[in-house]
Amino acid sequence: MQSQKVWTAALVVIGDEILSGRTQDKNIAQVAVWLNDQGIRLAEVRVVPDDPRRIADAVNALRVTHDYLFTTGGIGPTHDDITVDSIAAAFGVPVIEHPEARRILEDYYAGRGIALTESRLRMARVPQGAELIANPSSGAPGVKIANVYILAGVPHIAASMLEALTGTLEGGRPMVSVTVGAFSAESDVADLLRATEAAHAGVAIGSYPFFKDGRYGANFVIRSEDSEAARGCGDDLLHKLAAAGFEARDGGI
Amino acid sequence: MQSQKVWTAALVVIGDEILSGRTQDKNIAQVAVWLNDQGIRLAEVRVVPDDPRRIADAVNALRVTHDYLFTTGGIGPTHDDITVDSIAAAFGVPVIEHPEARRILEDYYAGRGIALTESRLRMARVPQGAELIANPSSGAPGVKIANVYILAGVPHIAASMLEALTGTLEGGRPMVSVTVGAFSAESDVADLLRATEAAHAGVAIGSYPFFKDGRYGANFVIRSEDSEAARGCGDDLLHKLAAAGFEARDGGI
Repeated sequence: MQSQKVWTAALVVIGDEILSGRTQDKNIAQVAVWLNDQGIRLAEVRVVPDDPRRIADAVNALRVTHDYLFTTGGIGPTHDDITVDSIAAAFGVPVIEHPEARRILEDYYAGRGIALTESRLRMARVPQGAELIANPSSGAPGVKIANVYILAGVPHIAASMLEALTGTLEGGRPMVSVTVGAFSAESDVADLLRATEAAHAGVAIGSYPFFKDGRYGANFVIRSEDSEAARGCGDDLLHKLAAAGFEARDGGI
Repeated sequence: MQSQKVWTAALVVIGDEILSGRTQDKNIAQVAVWLNDQGIRLAEVRVVPDDPRRIADAVNALRVTHDYLFTTGGIGPTHDDITVDSIAAAFGVPVIEHPEARRILEDYYAGRGIALTESRLRMARVPQGAELIANPSSGAPGVKIANVYILAGVPHIAASMLEALTGTLEGGRPMVSVTVGAFSAESDVADLLRATEAAHAGVAIGSYPFFKDGRYGANFVIRSEDSEAARGCGDDLLHKLAAAGFEARDGGI
């Protein structure tokens, strides 16, 4: 099992609004969770500004080092929506109007009695050679070119594009996790954690301290591609924590 | 004013828990906002896993391309806290125990009647040549080496370390922003936005659509290092939106 291919993806979050702190990113977590369900591990994220060269550099650095690359942001109708142009430049191909994308936009706006302006038609532009990603929530499609998946930045629209992609990407086994919580200072159980992780092949234990209801503690997340290994390690950890005198709970606190 | 130095920083968020989607990152936004107050622009973020080589690669790539580099995560007492070791490796220096950090931990735990174990002493380890960053909230200090600032991952602890650093970093003028909102589809005002941005030197306008109380609209954020230029552009945009028949509000919707 250890030798099977681990499928990885990277994510480029495009947007001055994230880097200014104005907007709290929500796409990293939702793309991560969705990828895991597809058996693909999110291995790196970069957040870059609305700058064509910086976008292209990040895309070119990450699309060759991972099985898949996702981007979020910058595919709307306004002047600051430069993702398609930047990724076309990264691939060295021109931007074209995609006939099917145009048709989708024509239908979408005609059905609402809204004119299909030049600005709205910007959302039919794709790098040459690209396919579309369905967008059940707002018409304008996402774009796929080679292993690069270009999604909207608005989280619920990105979510609907991910939904449309569900089950279409080749992956491996999803990473599973088992969480065990204890009312223990991290530093009191550091040796115990290290020994437990070492005793179970193919698992990684993360330690996340908390302060709740006036008590300190930590949740320990055991991750593995092997659900039995994760469960076995979790049981072992629960037992060891209890034996050491800590109040410990399966499922976390 | 355009020719004055723009101070930039990058942020490396270290943590499998972010990449798995288990934890929603909160440090990007708070570091971004804090940096802006210091007159420093957050120009890139990378999220990397708990992997020494990946941490070192990201740190080395970004510390030379920006005035400052911040990291969050991985500086606690447990086996998965590998940031200090990884950054020491990035700098090619050994890890040493910092005498002042040890003293801080001794005082902190003695004051609480808690033993200073080997695991807790891990939090006194720093790359050789490093200084400490005060941590008013939980004892264990942050670490500064050259232009790299190593902060805790727990958001309220990272915040207290930033608070301790306030006013100590050289920067330029803070980026200011003016927000104007309108009940208009982005695509109806795309040309108007483009023309407004072009008419005001030194400003950038971002467009962020929303759906609230059953109505579609967008907020337009005008950013500049020149507060008068931002205000002037905002007033111009408000005027143009109203003239085009849209309900527009200063301050955003």
